[in-house]
Amino acid sequence: MKASLRELAGAIGARLIGEDAEVTGVASVESAAAGKLVFAQDEKLLARCMQSPAAAVIAGEFAANAASPKPRLISGQPRLTFARAAAWFGAQEAFAATIDSTAVVATSAKLGHGIGVGALAVIEENACIGDRTRIGAGCVVGVGVEIGEDCTLFPNVTIYAGTRVGRRVIVHSGAVLGGDGFGYVRDQVSGHYEKFPQMGRLEIEDDVEIGANTTIDRGALDLTRIRRGTKIDNLVHIAHNVEIGEDVVIAAQTGISGSCVIGSGAVIGGQVGIGDHARIEEGVILGSGSGVLSNKTVRGKGIVFWGTPARPLKDHLKTLAALARLAKK
Amino acid sequence: MKASLRELAGAIGARLIGEDAEVTGVASVESAAAGKLVFAQDEKLLARCMQSPAAAVIAGEFAANAASPKPRLISGQPRLTFARAAAWFGAQEAFAATIDSTAVVATSAKLGHGIGVGALAVIEENACIGDRTRIGAGCVVGVGVEIGEDCTLFPNVTIYAGTRVGRRVIVHSGAVLGGDGFGYVRDQVSGHYEKFPQMGRLEIEDDVEIGANTTIDRGALDLTRIRRGTKIDNLVHIAHNVEIGEDVVIAAQTGISGSCVIGSGAVIGGQVGIGDHARIEEGVILGSGSGVLSNKTVRGKGIVFWGTPARPLKDHLKTLAALARLAKK
Amino acid sequence: MKASLRELAGAIGARLIGEDAEVTGVASVESAAAGKLVFAQDEKLLARCMQSPAAAVIAGEFAANAASPKPRLISGQPRLTFARAAAWFGAQEAFAATIDSTAVVATSAKLGHGIGVGALAVIEENACIGDRTRIGAGCVVGVGVEIGEDCTLFPNVTIYAGTRVGRRVIVHSGAVLGGDGFGYVRDQVSGHYEKFPQMGRLEIEDDVEIGANTTIDRGALDLTRIRRGTKIDNLVHIAHNVEIGEDVVIAAQTGISGSCVIGSGAVIGGQVGIGDHARIEEGVILGSGSGVLSNKTVRGKGIVFWGTPARPLKDHLKTLAALARLAKK
Repeated sequence: MKASLRELAGAIGARLIGEDAEVTGVASVESAAAGKLVFAQDEKLLARCMQSPAAAVIAGEFAANAASPKPRLISGQPRLTFARAAAWFGAQEAFAATIDSTAVVATSAKLGHGIGVGALAVIEENACIGDRTRIGAGCVVGVGVEIGEDCTLFPNVTIYAGTRVGRRVIVHSGAVLGGDGFGYVRDQVSGHYEKFPQMGRLEIEDDVEIGANTTIDRGALDLTRIRRGTKIDNLVHIAHNVEIGEDVVIAAQTGISGSCVIGSGAVIGGQVGIGDHARIEEGVILGSGSGVLSNKTVRGKGIVFWGTPARPLKDHLKTLAALARLAKK
Repeated sequence: MKASLRELAGAIGARLIGEDAEVTGVASVESAAAGKLVFAQDEKLLARCMQSPAAAVIAGEFAANAASPKPRLISGQPRLTFARAAAWFGAQEAFAATIDSTAVVATSAKLGHGIGVGALAVIEENACIGDRTRIGAGCVVGVGVEIGEDCTLFPNVTIYAGTRVGRRVIVHSGAVLGGDGFGYVRDQVSGHYEKFPQMGRLEIEDDVEIGANTTIDRGALDLTRIRRGTKIDNLVHIAHNVEIGEDVVIAAQTGISGSCVIGSGAVIGGQVGIGDHARIEEGVILGSGSGVLSNKTVRGKGIVFWGTPARPLKDHLKTLAALARLAKK
Repeated sequence: MKASLRELAGAIGARLIGEDAEVTGVASVESAAAGKLVFAQDEKLLARCMQSPAAAVIAGEFAANAASPKPRLISGQPRLTFARAAAWFGAQEAFAATIDSTAVVATSAKLGHGIGVGALAVIEENACIGDRTRIGAGCVVGVGVEIGEDCTLFPNVTIYAGTRVGRRVIVHSGAVLGGDGFGYVRDQVSGHYEKFPQMGRLEIEDDVEIGANTTIDRGALDLTRIRRGTKIDNLVHIAHNVEIGEDVVIAAQTGISGSCVIGSGAVIGGQVGIGDHARIEEGVILGSGSGVLSNKTVRGKGIVFWGTPARPLKDHLKTLAALARLAKK
């Protein structure tokens, strides 16, 4: 893959300063070979980039007048522009839009144009796969599942019957979408647990990414819903009937119990635990390892909460300091 | 699927009040369409059910004399009866008792009557599958595994060689049963770890349900055992040589270290951590996020423990309150 | 499988005392049948072993003069010698070095001698598999993956394109190696997250073992690296750009955030959380459930740290004691 800086600048909305040159992809400044594109957020990084063998540097306005012959792509958000450059190169890569002869695709499944289905993948009855979507080797797409356009399922993903997935969704290997929630009724006579119905559905909107071995359960009777643009890391658990807003970020190994509501723009650290029926409101930031008790509401756009039970960071730090004093007595 | 209320009442042990009608399944009161069956635990919910388009309501004795033309199924445990109605409808659904032509089944495997094996599932040598059990697409059932009658393995489950699974067991996608435990011996000379044998077995009794991407290891030299009726959520880890009693409930992302013993009827919240060789005695309730240290015993039927190290809830709340006071000083 | 004690003693470096006999494998003292080999670390266990039906006992020097007719294999590290005896028996077991006819192996893949590929495994273009390596049923080995000699992949492992795996590596079912890290750039204008490139690689050195459903991400632009001899339990998460030293032990459900460095010989308990860019130096022991904040360094060979934020065990215990006093006031 090769591109001219001028062509790339146009595609990603940056301003070229210096001579046009050919670039072959992005790299870190530490490992950049000739022909690669690197990025700098500040003067110090810019100096390192300038000395690297990289062909060009994406940087902020501060780099426009730098005294260096190396070409620059100037952008208001250089890290974002770098990400878009990488995505642009990725999009140019050929992709085998073929259905592997060893895949098992139900005749009733509806397949869009230009889709790729990997070896030994299974697409069950009445599933519906959008244009240009890629299903990795060994995936199992259940009965009646709907997947939108331009999605990528990495190998060995499992999607239970009836789940709906939007457009441009990325699902990593081992993720299980739409499994039964954890709900039982205890028979007061025998003391045994019997399964409460888990027959609702899981809906995942556009531009969501789901990490490896993450599990998201279907609703018990109604919906579990993950809204547009939300990004979920590896080994996360999302229980039945949860509603997650738009542009939420959830780091690895966090668990969200049944019927929680997470507002748009929330940022949830790793290994957080949220009890059932809790509400995390719009824009809340929950530090790693925090715990939110059942039925609680956590509120405050841009406010960082930490600890168990989660409190504003300031209060949490006060408690830690008090504890440290106490231990010294 | 259709049933008369009278037929269903007989099947699930409820008393019909009002006119017989046809019902087509269960639903939540929020989403119930005509023909659906809903349930109410109290007067307030009953009022909502009565106003919904649902065909009938399962409710407690309190609803027997309600002034409404909508038919009711009266039961001492309405939520349980609702769960049984859902199960009854599920059991009526046709199920393809066929072995998919793309499944790879060893000729030495013993298959019961009426079993279903999904596309591209693998059943290895000398495995033994009970009558009416369903093996989902992409599952791998190892050498010599024994699975009882009426089990359901969702797609992409892995069962290591020699594991025994009882009857009516449900295993969700991505679960790994009978993997090697985490045991090594450090060579005092080289400082390297060498694998301690992990050649015991995993036994899972009847009526257990195991969540998606949960891992349960085989015993090192002897057994790991999960007893009848225990329910395990997603992403739970159960280490080698653990013994879990009957009717235990374990919520998501909990980890139980090697050689622990969990008594019958215990309820273990999400993200709990239990150190090796700990004993959680019969009927103990461990709050979410609690930690139990190695070799400790937690005792007290029906008593709620919380925190790390886990203490009775009352003591835990006192500590939290004291901490809050301290931070204010 | 049968062996004489004399032959085995030679193979595992132990000294035979008593008559030679035939042994058929190892067992725990609780379950040992005739013909089995057991081990004893102390006099008390030795007495139990001597009374068991086992054919012989591996024990320390203390057992050399024990008054018993049962043969002994004497070793300076009896538990280690027992582990080696088990490994020796395992290595004698026949293993089907065949490529199952249902596996899908790209013609460009390079396969070593004597390798085994299970049913319905997928080996993609230009992958390279070393001699005597076994790939379990349902595994997916991505484009250009390199796997060394004598490795074992249990069923349903997924390895993303470009990952490199050393020799004698064991990977348990459901593990996902080399998946995309969790990295995004937020567009300050739209508020949406866009994917930061995750195109680095994962390198796993010799003698590593990786537990079931564990996820290890590739580097964003450069490497994630797991060095020789490190052992990782089930459901562990290791993020992009992490470097883990040699002979590190990581127990189940621990999460290691991006760009952390873990020194050789560190021991990390279960459910530990380590924030991004933290350094755990050589030989540190982190107790289960501990938390290390981002950018922190934890230092001290052989020193046990506990709690969140992790502190030396002594300090942690002082705090717990102070808290207990406080709650009693």
